[in-house]
Amino acid sequence: MTADLKLEKLHSELPEAPEPKGVYKPVIILDNLVYVSGHGPNRVDGTQFTGKVGQEVDKDFGKLAARQVGLTILATLKKNLGSLNRVKRVVKVLGMVNAHPDFEEHPYVINGCSELFAEIWGAELGIGVRSAVGMGSLPGRITVEIEAVFELV
Amino acid sequence: MTADLKLEKLHSELPEAPEPKGVYKPVIILDNLVYVSGHGPNRVDGTQFTGKVGQEVDKDFGKLAARQVGLTILATLKKNLGSLNRVKRVVKVLGMVNAHPDFEEHPYVINGCSELFAEIWGAELGIGVRSAVGMGSLPGRITVEIEAVFELV
Amino acid sequence: MTADLKLEKLHSELPEAPEPKGVYKPVIILDNLVYVSGHGPNRVDGTQFTGKVGQEVDKDFGKLAARQVGLTILATLKKNLGSLNRVKRVVKVLGMVNAHPDFEEHPYVINGCSELFAEIWGAELGIGVRSAVGMGSLPGRITVEIEAVFELV
Repeated sequence: MTADLKLEKLHSELPEAPEPKGVYKPVIILDNLVYVSGHGPNRVDGTQFTGKVGQEVDKDFGKLAARQVGLTILATLKKNLGSLNRVKRVVKVLGMVNAHPDFEEHPYVINGCSELFAEIWGAELGIGVRSAVGMGSLPGRITVEIEAVFELV
Repeated sequence: MTADLKLEKLHSELPEAPEPKGVYKPVIILDNLVYVSGHGPNRVDGTQFTGKVGQEVDKDFGKLAARQVGLTILATLKKNLGSLNRVKRVVKVLGMVNAHPDFEEHPYVINGCSELFAEIWGAELGIGVRSAVGMGSLPGRITVEIEAVFELV
Repeated sequence: MTADLKLEKLHSELPEAPEPKGVYKPVIILDNLVYVSGHGPNRVDGTQFTGKVGQEVDKDFGKLAARQVGLTILATLKKNLGSLNRVKRVVKVLGMVNAHPDFEEHPYVINGCSELFAEIWGAELGIGVRSAVGMGSLPGRITVEIEAVFELV
């Protein structure tokens, strides 16, 4: 089954591909790689998941936020590539959690995005290298921000 | 107009290309890419922009600091490449703001660097993908640190 | 002397190459590059260096932790590549220190890893570009996390 069909089967509605909120592009394609800007957890209704994990929100809210970042990245890929089928594999994910200084479960949170990508492109090609770390602060107090690199078919 | 001429027209004096303060190189050239180490906001007089945004300094100071990081990166590129004309385009910027945990306007701050790059290489090729995020702390309490990847002509 | 022989000469016992604690791969090889996931400071006995620099632990503990991250990355490279000799050079290191908001000596800490890589692959090819920065928090309260990119022979 193709990545586009798998996305359909998830019945997860994608948010709008976000317009840049600053001087940057959502994606850059260079040779066989797609570089994707840091994305936030945009909901379909235009709001975002906000709040610091381990302070105003818990790790399960954080994991849902990370999945929503993944959906937002999928929306950007679909808009810019035309189809998720053009992605061969996930290369690299930098998962940044807006967390209290004592929070310790960043991998659990970022799995929300990584599990989504594995559903779309499979357990072999849908999983890349990753760092899951805690930021001091994030734009608009969003709960998670993720940047990524994908390889094209 | 070439990138070097645009830089001249800005009348922005570049700081010295900084010597590494640790065990790293300022740039690595690999195939058609230039990887640039994290740079700080070095002034021409050898001092740096310091202080946490949203605590000791405000977002406009932060934006000036980010522009100064951009100028410091330009100094490093000029020293290592000979000319800014050898850069084809900005690929990727990781903009790290030394911010109070409640700060929310990282994109506004990092635009200080991104707008400079857009002035030098144009609105199409001078703008790449980006993440603009808040760090818990930065070396020497500098206000902004930025690492970047450029594509060569 | 080859990288593998230099490692032997160090008499530094490598920890086990860590199994992923989340949905990611330790390394991805793409063309001539090896992308390495964020690694922590794993000891041979299975424990990790933990604690925030400038709060529960000092900068020299931090530097030892960074060296241990380097050894953990070497273990992952050896397991996945078969030999450290397959690495041509260090391209890029992102050194993330779990630090108190007022900590300022991140380059000193991350040198613990960078000096190890320079011992293994030499002062020219063993040193790449780098950012050394302070995170708000890290998984399991580890002291340092580092992700890296290497070029293959």
